[in-house]
This record gives sequence, structure tokens and C-alpha cells, in this order.
Amino acid sequence: MRATFIYGAGDVRVINVPDPVIQQPTDAIVRVVRACICGSDLHPYHNMPVTTEGNSIGHECIGVFEETGADVTSVSKGDLVIVPFAWSDGTCDFCREGLQTSCRHGGFWNADGVGGGQAEAIRVPLADGTLVAAPVEEDSPLIPSLLTLSDVYGTGYHAAIKASVNPRTTVTVIGDGAVGLLAVLSARQLGAEQIILMGRHTSRTDLGREFGATDVVAERGDEGIERVRDLTSGDGTHVVIEAVGHMPAYEQAIGAVRPGGVISRVGVPQYDNAPVGFGSLFGPNITLTGGPAPARAYIQTLMPSILSGQVNPGRVFDSEIALDEVPQGYKDMDSRRALKVLIRP
Amino acid sequence: MRATFIYGAGDVRVINVPDPVIQQPTDAIVRVVRACICGSDLHPYHNMPVTTEGNSIGHECIGVFEETGADVTSVSKGDLVIVPFAWSDGTCDFCREGLQTSCRHGGFWNADGVGGGQAEAIRVPLADGTLVAAPVEEDSPLIPSLLTLSDVYGTGYHAAIKASVNPRTTVTVIGDGAVGLLAVLSARQLGAEQIILMGRHTSRTDLGREFGATDVVAERGDEGIERVRDLTSGDGTHVVIEAVGHMPAYEQAIGAVRPGGVISRVGVPQYDNAPVGFGSLFGPNITLTGGPAPARAYIQTLMPSILSGQVNPGRVFDSEIALDEVPQGYKDMDSRRALKVLIRP
Repeated sequence: MRATFIYGAGDVRVINVPDPVIQQPTDAIVRVVRACICGSDLHPYHNMPVTTEGNSIGHECIGVFEETGADVTSVSKGDLVIVPFAWSDGTCDFCREGLQTSCRHGGFWNADGVGGGQAEAIRVPLADGTLVAAPVEEDSPLIPSLLTLSDVYGTGYHAAIKASVNPRTTVTVIGDGAVGLLAVLSARQLGAEQIILMGRHTSRTDLGREFGATDVVAERGDEGIERVRDLTSGDGTHVVIEAVGHMPAYEQAIGAVRPGGVISRVGVPQYDNAPVGFGSLFGPNITLTGGPAPARAYIQTLMPSILSGQVNPGRVFDSEIALDEVPQGYKDMDSRRALKVLIRP
Repeated sequence: MRATFIYGAGDVRVINVPDPVIQQPTDAIVRVVRACICGSDLHPYHNMPVTTEGNSIGHECIGVFEETGADVTSVSKGDLVIVPFAWSDGTCDFCREGLQTSCRHGGFWNADGVGGGQAEAIRVPLADGTLVAAPVEEDSPLIPSLLTLSDVYGTGYHAAIKASVNPRTTVTVIGDGAVGLLAVLSARQLGAEQIILMGRHTSRTDLGREFGATDVVAERGDEGIERVRDLTSGDGTHVVIEAVGHMPAYEQAIGAVRPGGVISRVGVPQYDNAPVGFGSLFGPNITLTGGPAPARAYIQTLMPSILSGQVNPGRVFDSEIALDEVPQGYKDMDSRRALKVLIRP
């Protein structure tokens, strides 16, 4: 089959690899119907050292159950299933607590002999714990929105949940990528009445307004912080969702958060150390939270409003390409020509 | 009157200063009945650059209302009052939310023309918002316990509250100073059933056991982390309370916390930058919280169990001195000869 591999920064190729096969009785093989490129895929696209063997890439897809191991019971052949960005047993204490990214027997795609989502098919370990069936056909117009449950919608929602967003909290979202925009949507769903979106791409921030942003701040750094403070009587917002992952966004979060408030990070941090001392987090009693979203935990919560047409998170996709065009898709996302690229294998 | 001033690291003196006088109609003058030395007073005692003019020091005391400004209504002359470690108006939005340390009109002792608690008397700004009357006489044996409501008991409680300690959370407390021990007491009051106290001074950890610690770990660093993991099936605890403020304690907290858990800091951080990246906080979805405790917020909650004799947080005081002996008191706390020093002006 065809699958996407990365060989180093800027070097993404679609190559032929052996078809995935059942290895464990708890495995399933899923034929990919739609996949996509994630903002976090751009981190290795920027930084990965050159390798000769390459590594598969991609961790978001939706597909059809083709073949199952003997022990798989919860889904049937032909079901359309959402593949969240981590695989998990669904039974350990972490899974039961809704932290499937820390599952005792789970893992992440593209490691330990498991492939990636930007491919024609994928072997899914622990299929019963990992997959969620969606009651639609593979040609449904809801597919793009359901695909966001693999990662970006769940990630935006995780950011808002970890910050306990509610009708009494004001919210700033830093970043107008797909996760930032879906954090706006999530904050709105959780009742936030003031949602300030920080982003510079008008087409994206316009979608952010449709998703529920009440204010848009295009400025960055100190000027951006000043604008957020102007919009909040000088205080900053109770919650700041940081959906970028770079240090300037972290610093902006500290500047935009209200004393006693919460900074919730879902952009994968591209730094190790950061200010947490008296002048940044400690003095004003700021809480820092977030992490990789246990997307699996939120699929059943978020799917009904997609199925009913109440929300349309799939609007973050503004480009659709064939599998062999994936290298160009990375270029388009990296240059910001595309907000989020849908892949049709 | 006599008051304690610090002139630089290691240089604490008790000097004569003018008696405090009412400056604003919202002020009160409180004659100090008992004060004490705080672990956080040791930070300037270690680090403060030499000055010729010096600065008053001390932020915990209990005393008697001597004189009030015209607008003070909530307490009367002769009342015994608890002076929390920040002064606050009690009416702004932050105060109503229980974050008096961020009060819009408040401040901290030993700054902006307001003195410190290690003195014969103190001017209390915004007395109605700041002070809480305690229904006891000044010779009551409950005075030491009530004095802990100025700071250390409220601070330990704040750490536990910010981490949402409850009967289902396991807790590690790093630090066997007064705040650490009272964090143990607070975690127990909030229902925690496993409380691991990390500390090396047997007399202190013995008191920690009386306050509710179920396990004591004397080891530090990687060895200490290993011991906590041994006690928690390899996972670490849901909550780690960091009551020290130095980087090794922060690193220990990261090692001892369970994925999805909370690190709650109340030791004033003696560092600005710290690990917060994928390998420390982000990957396992760890929340970092805490800050200076709004002690005022907790006085009314915590006082009843002191008055009823249910708890005796005043047991953290293991030394009592006269005001003129304060320089020796600092030496005793610094050398760990004393856990916490009570001052009798």
C-alpha cells in the first residue's frame, strides 16, 4: 500500500510499504477513508534530523473496519470508525479516568511497529478500547467533521475542559490554527460569553468568529497583551488557551491571564524550560495545565452535536488532496496557504 | 516601640521606631500579642543585599485592637484579631472570589509605609477587610494555633485546596517545615487517605504523622522519588504539594506526581525558569498550580476546628522567645534548631 514517511525536516514522501496485517487478536485493520495533516506534524517537518530509513507519519484518520483480530468485539466489519490519536485499552484506571494518553497498555502511532494515519490502511492495536464507530456511511458529508474527533476538536475541547471553562469564565485563545479555532468552538459550547481569539489570518479569524469568538486580536507580543487587557478592563481573561507551542505564545499567555486564572496548553511545547516564578505564575496564583488530549475520552461527548448538524468543526479543512499529493500538503500547511489539509487515500 | 528590621543577609536587628499611628480612616492599630518567624523570612535572610536603612520584617501576628480609624466598623477596641499576611479591602471582585492576595486596593506588610508583624504594634490598612476577630482572650492557650491562621495553616490549606485534595486523591507533601506539616493536616481534613511526607527531621516528621501523614520518606532526589513510587504501585500520587521553594523540590515534585495529577506550590520559588515541557509537565498532563495563599479567605473556615480543639496546628511552634531575641530566633530557624519560633513582644 501507499503510506507517508518523513525522512527529515522538509522531506516527506509517499512510498510503497507492506500492507498492515493483524498481529494480535486485539488488533484491527482499518482502511483509511480520510486522513489529514496536523499542526503538530509540522514540528518534525521543521526539526527532524535526517534519517535513511524514515518514519511513518500522521495520527488522524477515519476509516472502515476491514479485518479484526479474534478478540475484537465492539465494532464490526464495514463499520465506519474514528481513530483517535493515541491507542488505548479502554479498561485500565487511566482510561477509566479519561486519560487515555497515559493508558497502561496503549501508545502512539508511528512507533513500536504501528504505522501512521496518512496511509491507505492502518493496523489499530487494542481496537476495542481505541476505536469509536460513527453511524454514517463513508460518503457522508459529515466525514470531515467526524475526522476532527481524531484530534483537533478533542484537543481544543481538552484545553477548555482542563481550564474548567464555563459561563462565568472569560477566555483568550492564542493561535488561529485548527486547534485554536476548535478551542473557540469548545469554549462557546461550554458557555463562555467572552472569547478573544488571537490570530493574524483574517480568513481563519473570520471562521473563529463564526465558531464563537467575540473579539479578535491580530497584534502579538506586548501589543497583543495590551489589546487583551483593553478588552477586559485591564485584567486579562480567566482562561488562556495556548494552542501554538512556541515560547512567544507562552509569554503571551502569561501576559493575558487574569490573577487566579488558568493557562491551558495544548500546543506541543517546543521548549523545555519556561518562566514559572514569582513574577509569572506564582505571585498571581496562575494555574498551568494541559497536555496531549485524550481525544478518545471526548468522542462520544462531542459526536452528537456533529451528527445533529449543530456544529460543523470540519470547516477547518480548506484543502483536499489525494494521498500522493501529501508532500505538497505539508508545504501548503507550512506556508499557511492551507489551514488544514484533508487527505483522500 | 521596638520592631524587627533586616539590613541584609544574616543581619536582623530589633530597633526603636516611632509608634505606628492611624493614617487613614480605614486603618487600625493592633498591639501585637504574639508574632512568629516564617520559613519565607529566611529567603531575605539568605539573599538580601546589604542596605543602610534596612526594612521591617515579619508578616504573621495576632494582637489586640488598640485604636481604629473613623470608618472601621467590623471590630471593636479590645478585640483579639488575627492579622493575615496580606491586607485587603474585602469588597473587590478578587476578595469576593477568595483571592485577597490580588486585592485591587490591598498590599503586603513591610512595603509602602506599612510595617511588619515582628514588632510591638502594627498599623493595619483596610482593617475591616483584613482582620478577623477571634473569640478568645489574649492569654488563651489557643493563641499559638490561632496565630497559624495568619499564614502557615492557611498556606498549607491553600496548597491542598488548589490541588482539589479529596478522599479519592493520594498526596505527597515535600518539605517538613511548618507549611508542609500543616499541608499534611489540611490534606487529612479534606479526606486524603494516603499522605506521604517527604522530610528528614524525625521530630518534624513525627508531628507530621500525628497530623495525618501515613508514610514518611526521608530520602531526597531520585532516591526519594523511587520511594514514593514504591509506595504508590509505581505511579506517584495524584497530588504533590511543594512546600519548599527550591529547584530540587520542584524536580522532586515532577518525579513524584502521577500522570494527570497536580503539583501545588506554596513554597515561594527561589527560581524563575523551570522544566514545563513534554518530558516534565506536558506529556503526562500534569497541572502546576499554587501561589501566595490568600490566608484571609480561609480564616473563618479553619478557625472553628481550632476553637473546638479538634486540631492543634500551633504545635508547629517549638520555641518561644522575647522580641529582643528575634535575631537569635532567625539563627535557630536557619540552622533548623527550631521548626517555628513564636515571638512574645
